[in-house]
Amino acid sequence: MQRIYAPTLTALALGLTAQGATAQDLRADALDYFSALPSTTPAVHDNPITPEKIALGKALFFDPRMSASGVFSCNSCHNLATGGDDNLETSIGHGWQKGPRNAPTVLNAVFNDAQFWDGRAADLAEQAKGPVQAGVEMANTPDNVIATLTSMPQYVDWFGASFPEQTEPVTFDNFAKAIEAYEATLLTPSPFDAWLNGNDDAMTGQQVAGLQTFMDAGCASCHNGINLGGNGYYPFGLIEKPGADVLPAGDKGRFAVTDTVDDEYVFRAAPLRNIAVTAPYFHSGKVWDLTTAVEIMASSQLGAELSEGEVTDIVAFLGALTGEVPEVVYPILPAETAETPRPSGAVLPD
Amino acid sequence: MQRIYAPTLTALALGLTAQGATAQDLRADALDYFSALPSTTPAVHDNPITPEKIALGKALFFDPRMSASGVFSCNSCHNLATGGDDNLETSIGHGWQKGPRNAPTVLNAVFNDAQFWDGRAADLAEQAKGPVQAGVEMANTPDNVIATLTSMPQYVDWFGASFPEQTEPVTFDNFAKAIEAYEATLLTPSPFDAWLNGNDDAMTGQQVAGLQTFMDAGCASCHNGINLGGNGYYPFGLIEKPGADVLPAGDKGRFAVTDTVDDEYVFRAAPLRNIAVTAPYFHSGKVWDLTTAVEIMASSQLGAELSEGEVTDIVAFLGALTGEVPEVVYPILPAETAETPRPSGAVLPD
Repeated sequence: MQRIYAPTLTALALGLTAQGATAQDLRADALDYFSALPSTTPAVHDNPITPEKIALGKALFFDPRMSASGVFSCNSCHNLATGGDDNLETSIGHGWQKGPRNAPTVLNAVFNDAQFWDGRAADLAEQAKGPVQAGVEMANTPDNVIATLTSMPQYVDWFGASFPEQTEPVTFDNFAKAIEAYEATLLTPSPFDAWLNGNDDAMTGQQVAGLQTFMDAGCASCHNGINLGGNGYYPFGLIEKPGADVLPAGDKGRFAVTDTVDDEYVFRAAPLRNIAVTAPYFHSGKVWDLTTAVEIMASSQLGAELSEGEVTDIVAFLGALTGEVPEVVYPILPAETAETPRPSGAVLPD
Repeated sequence: MQRIYAPTLTALALGLTAQGATAQDLRADALDYFSALPSTTPAVHDNPITPEKIALGKALFFDPRMSASGVFSCNSCHNLATGGDDNLETSIGHGWQKGPRNAPTVLNAVFNDAQFWDGRAADLAEQAKGPVQAGVEMANTPDNVIATLTSMPQYVDWFGASFPEQTEPVTFDNFAKAIEAYEATLLTPSPFDAWLNGNDDAMTGQQVAGLQTFMDAGCASCHNGINLGGNGYYPFGLIEKPGADVLPAGDKGRFAVTDTVDDEYVFRAAPLRNIAVTAPYFHSGKVWDLTTAVEIMASSQLGAELSEGEVTDIVAFLGALTGEVPEVVYPILPAETAETPRPSGAVLPD
């Protein structure tokens, strides 16, 4: 029989209390910077989310016929099987052209303050209209998208069910709103959320240490909020400009949006959820290794030299941001009809 | 109160019996030509199908990193959302190159006697190795596929679970076998199957009439078996060669496989399941309209001029071959590691 002494029990209890208090303090600090994902689909501006609209948006998201060539869907570059992005330096699009910037993940993107690396789209509905029309991406036109959708009675029915108050619901605006509604459901609760919500065991000791370092070193000054980023703009190279291999001179970031000199090489702080599964990194997509990316950020944005252990801890913490992707049943799309515009892979001159 | 006379009842009964007998006769005739899909996944040669292998095969089928560029997966050209094909004349692949022939549907393909339009692959495992390596499709090499898979521990585990008797299970042969196992599950039971299985109401009167015409006119001489095709080779233009727009002179079909003059312009009779949702038609993909395709077949293969009504009936019957695609939960794929070969969109010279 095991004998238990009162002093030991007391010591254990004290120890646990002290540990608990530390976790509590760190959690309180963390909650000043971050928020856990909500447990439900968020409301989005001017776009009531209904099951019908989500289902329509899912079909559109996966439909390659939304591109001129019939080759690319939203999911091609924002692949839900691979972290909501395409794991390419920059995406390959229409005519095998390369996109100018790395494709950001669609997962949890509804919580970004604005979309694209330069924040040029206010929300996901505005964002959805971009790649469809971009010559190097899906190279389509709103008219051709609408002609394609209108040619398939099932799509017309789905738009009617999604926008029941409208007499002509098949519009490019509604196309974008349906995609936004679907994307708003793509939330990936992670161990970090469980930890923020009070589960001390959800993160490893190293991940907790990494979180502490992430806040102490200043990373959380830019990477905060629900998405640990995606909510502010900062010069890439605030303290020290990285080399042209990582920060190509030709892409001046937000300058193209605001035409303000202060915005040269300014980019949105990357949202960090699922960062461990969405290499390569930065708008240029030039860095494949997360450890290297953290080191570059430390020197370029913070002027800090982190120890190897600190970097490793931060990378471990970032791993705790990898969340569970909601189960997606692959959609069965409406079949084309005689009226459906034919796909064209032709590359038009600019 | 309605009065029912015995003679009326007798007449009705006789009528029903006669109708029933007609349906029975037609069904008996049809069963000489066709078989309903089985209710279970078929066994395939030298490749025991297990749940683990199916799951691995599904991941591989949807994984764009199986292509050199990281852009194309099996599902890109055999899209389960759109009838198991890509609805393009011929597929667009690596470097925006066009494939030589229309992509056939993967649905029910396990029941084809051989794969590809010229039957050059004996089974789906052999087939799966083709597009991965074809320069105009996925442009990859077996070595690079294996290096990619080996770099991701989750894939290594999945191969181990799928081929438990092997000490080094991550091989190109096993890659192909896993894909074959997954594809063997992609069966789409249709109204025609329900009708063959005895449900008189599963097809409309017009579809039944179309089936009768399909057999009477001789279509079933080549399009028979479980897949109504996919099990024999015939000259395209047996009676009358279609124009070069439909039958381009440069593609001599099975001649390239057998090097036999008799096989010039010989192709596999297309399997017809889901034909209504897999336009465009023929190996050239030059015909988008199913009615036109039926008319071309009638004149080129049978020397028959079918009436407009007969063609319409046949097209209605072909619609009864559109089946229900099994529910597919979109896979979450393993994340790359530092060892994963980087994607390359570079187009190499031949």
